[in-house]
Amino acid sequence: MSDYFSFHLENRDGEARLSRFSTPHGVIHLPNFAPVGTQATVKTLTPDDLRQLGAEIILANTYHLYLRPGTDLLAKFGGLHNFMGWQGPILTDSGGFQVFSLTHRRDIDDDGVTFRSHIDGSKHRFTPEVVIAAQEAIGADIIMALDECPPPTDRDYVARSLQRTHAWAARCQEAQTRSDQALFGIVQGGIFPDLRRQSAEFLTALDLPGYAIGGLSVGETKEQMYATLDKLMPSMPADKPRYLMGVGTPEDVLEAVARGVDFFDCVLPTRMARNGGLFTHEGRLNIRNAVYKEDLRPIEEGCTCYTCQNFSRAYLRHLFQAKEILGLRLASLHNLHFMLRLMENVREAIDRGHFAQFKTDFLARYRISNQTKRHENRLAYETRRKEKE
Amino acid sequence: MSDYFSFHLENRDGEARLSRFSTPHGVIHLPNFAPVGTQATVKTLTPDDLRQLGAEIILANTYHLYLRPGTDLLAKFGGLHNFMGWQGPILTDSGGFQVFSLTHRRDIDDDGVTFRSHIDGSKHRFTPEVVIAAQEAIGADIIMALDECPPPTDRDYVARSLQRTHAWAARCQEAQTRSDQALFGIVQGGIFPDLRRQSAEFLTALDLPGYAIGGLSVGETKEQMYATLDKLMPSMPADKPRYLMGVGTPEDVLEAVARGVDFFDCVLPTRMARNGGLFTHEGRLNIRNAVYKEDLRPIEEGCTCYTCQNFSRAYLRHLFQAKEILGLRLASLHNLHFMLRLMENVREAIDRGHFAQFKTDFLARYRISNQTKRHENRLAYETRRKEKE
Repeated sequence: MSDYFSFHLENRDGEARLSRFSTPHGVIHLPNFAPVGTQATVKTLTPDDLRQLGAEIILANTYHLYLRPGTDLLAKFGGLHNFMGWQGPILTDSGGFQVFSLTHRRDIDDDGVTFRSHIDGSKHRFTPEVVIAAQEAIGADIIMALDECPPPTDRDYVARSLQRTHAWAARCQEAQTRSDQALFGIVQGGIFPDLRRQSAEFLTALDLPGYAIGGLSVGETKEQMYATLDKLMPSMPADKPRYLMGVGTPEDVLEAVARGVDFFDCVLPTRMARNGGLFTHEGRLNIRNAVYKEDLRPIEEGCTCYTCQNFSRAYLRHLFQAKEILGLRLASLHNLHFMLRLMENVREAIDRGHFAQFKTDFLARYRISNQTKRHENRLAYETRRKEKE
Repeated sequence: MSDYFSFHLENRDGEARLSRFSTPHGVIHLPNFAPVGTQATVKTLTPDDLRQLGAEIILANTYHLYLRPGTDLLAKFGGLHNFMGWQGPILTDSGGFQVFSLTHRRDIDDDGVTFRSHIDGSKHRFTPEVVIAAQEAIGADIIMALDECPPPTDRDYVARSLQRTHAWAARCQEAQTRSDQALFGIVQGGIFPDLRRQSAEFLTALDLPGYAIGGLSVGETKEQMYATLDKLMPSMPADKPRYLMGVGTPEDVLEAVARGVDFFDCVLPTRMARNGGLFTHEGRLNIRNAVYKEDLRPIEEGCTCYTCQNFSRAYLRHLFQAKEILGLRLASLHNLHFMLRLMENVREAIDRGHFAQFKTDFLARYRISNQTKRHENRLAYETRRKEKE
């Protein structure tokens, strides 16, 4: 690991780990959660809002920034930190995930992927070298190798794709010119333990400063995801941070921490908020529901977030009914506060050696949203998204 | 004036007045400007944002609040202050202006006006008694009499309508039951000096705690508006605050202050912001313009607003291009800061006795937006709004 980065394991509780990852823009206390700022903003929030929420790292999407405002402009600003005014740690993905999801607009080969912009149809090509150059222009603290994220249960596809992902990881490492960015490799292998192990071993040999687990929470069941982590985690290097991409729900985060995962990113808290979905310790509620019309209580009694300290459910519902932008912001503040306080409590529980009890207590109270319903919602969302493209 | 309110004239500079109006929720230093919070929120902003901007009073719309969330709900909260979390002074209009603008959905008579909701088509009736009861439930510090706002250049209509407006003002005064709300009368009379004087005299006789000037900035030219104020202002009571409704632009505010107006409200700063229009001391700019694509400067050098202290024109333009909600918020913060600092500077200039020079200097630098273009924009906006109804 370069002088710019260091990983300190501070405590363990079962497989759960308490640690710190130091980056050029600050220390990230792990386990932690990265809010997603796709287009150089965590939707509806300022960098000050994020600081006040206690966010220690945010994620931005290379695909989106590459297309708009463009990496040349970001380079002119000395990087994304200056452009968006967030001086804490940033992680960028490689852009691969977004490009591959443009099903009808991309053509993948062993050297890279050619695609058309969802904004103006213009043609572009991502290779390991291109995405590293783009991420160097963006200047995030943590950058990701280009990988392919295959359908997790299609063994033949997963096995073939794994070779490509590995070759690309090595090429990304080779292409990197900046030492002040930590390049993370991404372990793939779908739900197949032998492929996952093979991937972890290949990438471990590259001795990268951190490792992500990709290709989960992309359509498999919760049981398949947890079983995959059970088998995979012992193969992951113990002396590097471990990042589970695109996860997730409070319950998935707790299950993954219990298996040794250190950090997470997900659009869920902010996207859900913009649809009126709000986290409470009893489970999710939807503020559009008529039952909240005259409800003078905050979203959750005892919550210390700005929204709960100042506004009622009835007022929030009114803002959503009246399509007022302030509602989206207040809901986003609450949900991110919920996730970030959850991570704070997770760290404290690990440090005190009662993480298992904390997890049991949390899950006993928290009503998990119906999986079938959630799956339907995801499909509906994907369909809408593709229609928009 | 009841014990809850007091008006102190502190200084004069020509016709311009420096004064203070005390209300149950705080003192308003005049001349001042009220941001508009139509639906119980100044769009995109929290009450904390407004406090930090130095806003001393905001306006809310009775028509909108009456329909949604409903005045019963507001009464249950003990009024709008508690519902929206703004504990400073609030002014509500009577709702008449909005109802009369529903051209094809309302039926006016001498007793009041029957109309259909733009939300669900439901039928309602506003009379002087109904709008006072609604405003008492909302609980604003300053409430407005029901008036009719006729086409300002149609003398016959204006003259007939004036009798109705005067009768309604007397009925509003009669209907009022709370002494902790200041009922303002609204002087009408279009662009006709004799009708304006007649209106001012009638309403002055009611000895209300404050007076508004309605029916301006509704289609007449700037020259007609200034000429109307020239003739009208000497007839307005000197010992009461004078409020010019729905105005306006920086240049109109300065011209009106020079003629003795004390306060203003207008959606312009926030609505313009949401369309990418930003105030500078050189005039307006539109941040969507390609010329700002790589502009590392703030909206205006030297501006102390949150947006200018933290973000570049290029970043703001990116947010607007990417349809990111944060852009609307940052633009709204800047424009309200601009208007509220302008009012602060106006007060200081009056106090020091060089308001005329201040006004001349400001207008020499400030490029006024083309009137024809603005008129077209207004018509386009009205058309869109009516189509939405």
